[in-house]
Amino acid sequence: MSHYSPAYSITVRLRYFDVPGALGKITSAIGDAGGYIGAVDIVNSLDGTLVRDITVQATDVEHGERIVEKINTLDGVEVSNVSDRTFLMHLGGKIEVVSKVPVKTRDDLSMAYTPGVARVCKAIEADPDASFNLTIRRNTVAVVSDGSAVLGLGNIGPLAAMPVMEGKALLFKEFGGVDAFPICLQTQDVEEIIQTVKHLAPTFGGINLEDISSPRCVEIEERLQEEIDIPVFHDDQHGTAVVVLAALKNALKVVKKSMDEIEVVINGAGAAGVAIAKLLTSVGVANMVVCDSKGAISRGRTEYVNPLKVWLAEHTNPQNRAGSLSEVIRGADLFVGVSVAGALQTSDVEAMADDAIVFALANPDPEILPEHASANVKVMATGRSDYPNQINNVLCFPGLFRGLLDVRARNINEEIKIAAADAIASVISESDLHPDYIIPSVFDRRVSTAVAEQVSKVAVETGVARRGKPTPQA
Amino acid sequence: MSHYSPAYSITVRLRYFDVPGALGKITSAIGDAGGYIGAVDIVNSLDGTLVRDITVQATDVEHGERIVEKINTLDGVEVSNVSDRTFLMHLGGKIEVVSKVPVKTRDDLSMAYTPGVARVCKAIEADPDASFNLTIRRNTVAVVSDGSAVLGLGNIGPLAAMPVMEGKALLFKEFGGVDAFPICLQTQDVEEIIQTVKHLAPTFGGINLEDISSPRCVEIEERLQEEIDIPVFHDDQHGTAVVVLAALKNALKVVKKSMDEIEVVINGAGAAGVAIAKLLTSVGVANMVVCDSKGAISRGRTEYVNPLKVWLAEHTNPQNRAGSLSEVIRGADLFVGVSVAGALQTSDVEAMADDAIVFALANPDPEILPEHASANVKVMATGRSDYPNQINNVLCFPGLFRGLLDVRARNINEEIKIAAADAIASVISESDLHPDYIIPSVFDRRVSTAVAEQVSKVAVETGVARRGKPTPQA
Repeated sequence: MSHYSPAYSITVRLRYFDVPGALGKITSAIGDAGGYIGAVDIVNSLDGTLVRDITVQATDVEHGERIVEKINTLDGVEVSNVSDRTFLMHLGGKIEVVSKVPVKTRDDLSMAYTPGVARVCKAIEADPDASFNLTIRRNTVAVVSDGSAVLGLGNIGPLAAMPVMEGKALLFKEFGGVDAFPICLQTQDVEEIIQTVKHLAPTFGGINLEDISSPRCVEIEERLQEEIDIPVFHDDQHGTAVVVLAALKNALKVVKKSMDEIEVVINGAGAAGVAIAKLLTSVGVANMVVCDSKGAISRGRTEYVNPLKVWLAEHTNPQNRAGSLSEVIRGADLFVGVSVAGALQTSDVEAMADDAIVFALANPDPEILPEHASANVKVMATGRSDYPNQINNVLCFPGLFRGLLDVRARNINEEIKIAAADAIASVISESDLHPDYIIPSVFDRRVSTAVAEQVSKVAVETGVARRGKPTPQA
Repeated sequence: MSHYSPAYSITVRLRYFDVPGALGKITSAIGDAGGYIGAVDIVNSLDGTLVRDITVQATDVEHGERIVEKINTLDGVEVSNVSDRTFLMHLGGKIEVVSKVPVKTRDDLSMAYTPGVARVCKAIEADPDASFNLTIRRNTVAVVSDGSAVLGLGNIGPLAAMPVMEGKALLFKEFGGVDAFPICLQTQDVEEIIQTVKHLAPTFGGINLEDISSPRCVEIEERLQEEIDIPVFHDDQHGTAVVVLAALKNALKVVKKSMDEIEVVINGAGAAGVAIAKLLTSVGVANMVVCDSKGAISRGRTEYVNPLKVWLAEHTNPQNRAGSLSEVIRGADLFVGVSVAGALQTSDVEAMADDAIVFALANPDPEILPEHASANVKVMATGRSDYPNQINNVLCFPGLFRGLLDVRARNINEEIKIAAADAIASVISESDLHPDYIIPSVFDRRVSTAVAEQVSKVAVETGVARRGKPTPQA
């Protein structure tokens, strides 16, 4: 498959003799090479030569290089520069820290800094919870990673993980109005990560863990949530689980089935698979089998070492079924894939129940492409933006933390996650529901507002909020 | 002493019958109570009553309260609200994290986040130094404190220290264009602080340590600078030392004395005192005695436990003089106080040499007030903005880190600190030098530019820069 993407767009600066037909020759060459032309700008014109910037989308890096080669074969055309728009966008990082208050005069300084600041410090010393009102804690979360499991890139380390964490910070601000600061750690030791985040806690109102490999991420999150008094949320686990639950709620309305009756198969026993299994269990899904690469996880298959699989063997698969994914998927109503591209064959989905639901979430290429699904699949979702029903964590985390910060929550519980899923699902009215529209767009501005409101409300109801009632965003 | 300050300004909202002379009665009452009136605004007017906001500067908190009481005694005037302008300024914190790139469309996201970001990650994985170009590292420092020695407030802990660190971040941006993020640590253990900052290092291009108590701060800084490859700078030590050296260079021109001939007495053997002693030694001051609260630090006075005092006993006081501050200050050309208010008497400065220089830097009240100095004192400086010659660290750290970041420095050496001091001093031309003008104003925009240029240059010359030559600011 090849999709054009601005992620692979280049801007080619070229100089050529301005004779009739010259530009046509260039654009044709780009077209012949399969390039998709965007902006065409004149940079300057001198002595009969013209300098232009042409922005071209390609399908990947090599494709971009081939397009440039093709232009270079043209007589009288000289490529003077090729810039990669994605790299340009990342130069110097994608976020900055700015002042919310004026610091132009001595009077400004005397209030924002010494001597005025001393009174604010003393007020917090007298009442530590005032830190949630008088410092950035009120609106700031840390996006913490050790770079051990970044996107599909694997263990690329903290330095290389930073662009992703900065990107996450952009999404927090854009969709939730949350100030997020990326922190990439020079350690992959569980105990050191826990200690480091504990030491950072006074600065933040919440901790978003990100791209930490499984099963370490589960222990890190659980320990931290026990040991510090601000919410700790590992997005790769629970963000995915919340959005899957939201999508499932609406998909079940479309196919007219209920949580307690469906047969569920989850493929992938990493942190996301387990988080999905736990959240579905808590909303009444009883009949669920989780597969790893060796097939169904069941009691007696082996002595599991991985604590996540121990949990799954004990808490899922009530009939203790054994066998491969292809075997256990027969008759299933819902498949959730958090595994790898191509894990599912057309014959596998053909064997599912009528009006089956398939969430094939492997990134960037799903377990099965929608065009390869069979007729009995009624609702299909992927992690991709170029198919209907994109399951994307950005539907959850900005609104979730917005809601948590607004009530100064101490932690996150199961009820809050379910409330977030309900809120996401509720954005699509019953009359709008459709097999291709079970989950709102990531750009639907109603989502984060709805999530924040429900999260604040349930945090108050379940006693984890420091403030009695939700307040407007800072 | 009582000074009006916006740091103690209040805005009083009051409602009164709008009869002739009413406002005059109110403003007179405020004046009688010693309040200094600023803005007077009408909020609304209804049925013959008027609501106004009157902003009043007071000299301290209690004075503000007395002013409000006085207004409350007036017939027909009702105070409905009193807001503290300093606290209002700090609500929700003083900084925010914002995006430098657009994230409004799917195309934006595909470049700033997935899938485009993956290529940027891979580029850093292949070349870790690319993190200084493709992430916020290029322009971002951490302002790290454990809250153990905050301003004059002492060990108030990390939560209460945050407003100061946020204020510092404002100054970094305003005066140096540096993105600074405050990090307050929930630990005061030296080893834990070192480990935590080491773990954070991949996120930042530099570390500014702040308000960490002595002598722990010295070990923390030295160990960190050995163990991580970005500059580590404890501002309370070296920022103060750099600005003192800058002021001294110009003061010596005014009094026509030289570094190698002056007799120096430093009062205060904390981290700042030792840093000043070290820096002055490195520029040729030979004759220097440092006093603690028990008098001159000398070989044989006692078995010093504090490693800073051990260093001072070994490296200063060449004649091994003993005695109190009042004894050793006789005949001195320069006094530097980093101690406590009132440490110096008029009789002490009278005993100094002709054309003496006195830097009385205790905050907020100096060792001796300028009006109590004697006629033989030619140049006097304090830490205060309401006397001439304010020794303020903001003259150093923004430009210093600007210069370090511009050349991607690995660490800070003595030559860089001296270069920063030279740059600060050089902003005042020889012809402008005056006993009351040896140090530029904190609002003199030439300072940080001059400091950054010199720091970049010397970092390159001394081999601690990753980049060959200084580049313009990000």
